[in-house]
Amino acid sequence: MRNVRALFSYDGSRFFGWQRQDGFPTVQEAVESALHSLLGEPHTVYGSGRTDTGVHALGQVANFHVETQLDDERLLFALNAHLDEGVVVRALETCPDDFHAQKHAIGKRYAYVLLTTRFRPPFAQDFAHWTPDSLDLGAMRRAALDLSGEHDFSAFATSGSPRKSNVRRIASLHWIARRDRLAFVIQGNGFLYNMVRTIAGTLLEVGRGKRARDSIADLIASRDRTQAGPTAAASGLYLVSVLYAEPSFRGHATTRRPPGVFPLS
Amino acid sequence: MRNVRALFSYDGSRFFGWQRQDGFPTVQEAVESALHSLLGEPHTVYGSGRTDTGVHALGQVANFHVETQLDDERLLFALNAHLDEGVVVRALETCPDDFHAQKHAIGKRYAYVLLTTRFRPPFAQDFAHWTPDSLDLGAMRRAALDLSGEHDFSAFATSGSPRKSNVRRIASLHWIARRDRLAFVIQGNGFLYNMVRTIAGTLLEVGRGKRARDSIADLIASRDRTQAGPTAAASGLYLVSVLYAEPSFRGHATTRRPPGVFPLS
Repeated sequence: MRNVRALFSYDGSRFFGWQRQDGFPTVQEAVESALHSLLGEPHTVYGSGRTDTGVHALGQVANFHVETQLDDERLLFALNAHLDEGVVVRALETCPDDFHAQKHAIGKRYAYVLLTTRFRPPFAQDFAHWTPDSLDLGAMRRAALDLSGEHDFSAFATSGSPRKSNVRRIASLHWIARRDRLAFVIQGNGFLYNMVRTIAGTLLEVGRGKRARDSIADLIASRDRTQAGPTAAASGLYLVSVLYAEPSFRGHATTRRPPGVFPLS
Repeated sequence: MRNVRALFSYDGSRFFGWQRQDGFPTVQEAVESALHSLLGEPHTVYGSGRTDTGVHALGQVANFHVETQLDDERLLFALNAHLDEGVVVRALETCPDDFHAQKHAIGKRYAYVLLTTRFRPPFAQDFAHWTPDSLDLGAMRRAALDLSGEHDFSAFATSGSPRKSNVRRIASLHWIARRDRLAFVIQGNGFLYNMVRTIAGTLLEVGRGKRARDSIADLIASRDRTQAGPTAAASGLYLVSVLYAEPSFRGHATTRRPPGVFPLS
């Protein structure tokens, strides 16, 4: 059995998230079904982590064990030929036997995309969070500064899945903007449940002038989820890349600015 | 009764084309229903022309007669509030009583969008025509030169709707390219049924090296539809703007390079 890791992009609006759920189309199930129909055996695919319904991926990573004569390149093409619309394998490579997409991940990069067009965008409604409000980018940039670094992010975590620690390290959070399209790209060593969407909802309040730009440090210190903003829509969230200590997917390296981050408006 | 013209964008993948068809969701029906529910009376909306199932619009124009106290700005917002997802009114203005969106149109601009990513794009499949083939942009640019000007375009017209004349004037056809995203923008005084999609299918054959770059003049002269390439997918086609002699929708003027022409890949 050979251990293989693969780099996936998917349109989250077509799936009920990553993780297999009986009776609902999910990305994990789509990939496992494609492997089953291609290789004639059931397979388990291990993702770097879940994504929720509606959340997109530009660079989700998963690994699985296969027994096949197909080399990596042929397996890549064959797997894509068996996959449903809305999910694609961008790259695939044989990896060390002990590689595990979730356990070995040392960080993740997400993007959150906003559109501020005057009217609801006809093309991008599944691919961005739309608001007709004008947003103060300078204020949102200022507020974002206080999120960087190592903090207890309990104020930004939807409760439900209790964890040993809610301390995470945000390595970077930067905003990019082009006319009526805005996005922030956030990288960290891990994210709590709904953390990026809650950061988005909170920064949106800052952008609208409803929350002070210098209030984020106090908010973090409160460790109180009720003090943060709402969980912003799944449609704006993209898992851009998963980071590992060892080099992987050479030539498909994560880009600093995800190319797909600005959809049609 | 006041004559109003409106500028629409819509996601063609959500509709069975522009024109009302009983039992199928169309853009015309969506707009007429929105007006009906907003103003309490049935209305007829006159589009500049049909678009087929799957064909998108960035700047379709239509007019309709209304009796309402709402001024243009309020009517614009109210109409958008009543419209389905996937269609938006970008602008709206009271116009001369005799203005007719179809009869007064003196030209149209379309864009045809291609993606040449290695694998089927997970996000853009409804918004572009995908081919994994590498395309010779220089050859497609050379071939496009011979389409400009006034010609009998019978070779590019799907038969079915007989017309007095198949002579049309192409004012410009230019290609734009960014990495694996290509588009051509074509402007003319009118287009035959499926003409832009057949031009796309023919230029794609040139790009793939299956048709000579200097063969287009002979193809036009043949006036034989069987000599041209296939009708390319509706998903790649965008009605960018409709041209009128009088100025309209100031501040929403058609852009030379449509901003929405490069969707997610």
